[in-house]
Amino acid sequence: DIAARTAASFETGSLAGLRLTITAGPTREPLDPVRYISNHSSGKMGFSLAQAAVSAGAHVTLISGPVNLATPDHVTRLDINSAQDMLQAAESDTAQCDIFIACAAVADYRPSAVAEHKIKKGKEEIMELHLIKNPDIVATIASKVNAPFTVGFAAETRDIVSYAQDKLVRKKLDLIIANDVSRTDIGFNSDDNAVTLVTADQVTELPMMRKRQLATSLIDHIAQLYKANR
Amino acid sequence: DIAARTAASFETGSLAGLRLTITAGPTREPLDPVRYISNHSSGKMGFSLAQAAVSAGAHVTLISGPVNLATPDHVTRLDINSAQDMLQAAESDTAQCDIFIACAAVADYRPSAVAEHKIKKGKEEIMELHLIKNPDIVATIASKVNAPFTVGFAAETRDIVSYAQDKLVRKKLDLIIANDVSRTDIGFNSDDNAVTLVTADQVTELPMMRKRQLATSLIDHIAQLYKANR
Repeated sequence: DIAARTAASFETGSLAGLRLTITAGPTREPLDPVRYISNHSSGKMGFSLAQAAVSAGAHVTLISGPVNLATPDHVTRLDINSAQDMLQAAESDTAQCDIFIACAAVADYRPSAVAEHKIKKGKEEIMELHLIKNPDIVATIASKVNAPFTVGFAAETRDIVSYAQDKLVRKKLDLIIANDVSRTDIGFNSDDNAVTLVTADQVTELPMMRKRQLATSLIDHIAQLYKANR
Repeated sequence: DIAARTAASFETGSLAGLRLTITAGPTREPLDPVRYISNHSSGKMGFSLAQAAVSAGAHVTLISGPVNLATPDHVTRLDINSAQDMLQAAESDTAQCDIFIACAAVADYRPSAVAEHKIKKGKEEIMELHLIKNPDIVATIASKVNAPFTVGFAAETRDIVSYAQDKLVRKKLDLIIANDVSRTDIGFNSDDNAVTLVTADQVTELPMMRKRQLATSLIDHIAQLYKANR
């Protein structure tokens, strides 16, 4: 049965005995008690990765922004809203982890001030919203002493590989999983995805497949790269 | 059975033979292909009103922003994302309707330009986002020649009644349904709500109840006020 197979994979799977921290979904950055800035991430990729990692024998913590998805079996889930809250949870959880997969679509910027009351619509035809940069969660974790094997994602609309290679070096990551969000058939809010794996010395294209199947393939690649690195 | 009762209510319900247009949910205002500004509206109130209106015999069109809700039986649903798209749908549908209920939490402002490609995170620690005012959907419909009986909502965090009375006059509405979104037990994303009905000559408080039950009560009040007005 499933419980027995899961129990067995904790001993024999490709990630047997390893601790993974995975972030998933969007973040929401509040402007006031009712409004926020967010993005179209469904969280499906991160949740599928968490499920595949458990099947490969890992102990998984999933740090998730607001999504409409059920928690996979045997996964420890922490729900957060903002990028700042996600960073705090990630720093705490990765202190003990072997592999960190930053799959969440974290808002790059947040409103510099959060209004205590709902902002009243004024007579002004225009409004300037002041934003400040959010912490870079994946780079923060990757730059730590004794950092886990760190995997980042790159959602791009053009020049996929060159942007990914630049990001890999700049953020000190071990692997970038890059995808093309300008394609409407894959990625955000779709059940399918096609990605390119970029490490310091190789570029590997994976064909379009279901996110669940892709998750299993990615976990296999991550396990191999992790073992080759350590 | 339900079908027979629904068929009967089209002839005998408090809204028998009337056409209602209801807006529901949030709007999403894109910054680029992946990011947007939105708000915490779940759409539950608008969907419950649509269902209650059908039960009262009305022909209902529900214009909905992005929500995770099933369409009530016998309701015609139009899905939109932005405030501009919601206005266009509302103008078209209210040309023939008797009662317009603007329940959606429409974004007051939208980014003045939508980037074609995902905006790259720069080195800048701050960013200015230029916003322009969205069309005021409920005021636009209410100000038309032969406007339908128009019902607006006011989500406030303080001075509920005075803000609602001001809004009623300024936007030429027939009824405002006001609620206090600073209360965490009701309103946005909750199954419960408590509201205050404000017309030109009366203020009526309704106690906290399930949104579904509240919807039935509101539809009864709206039907009475509509008949008293025409």
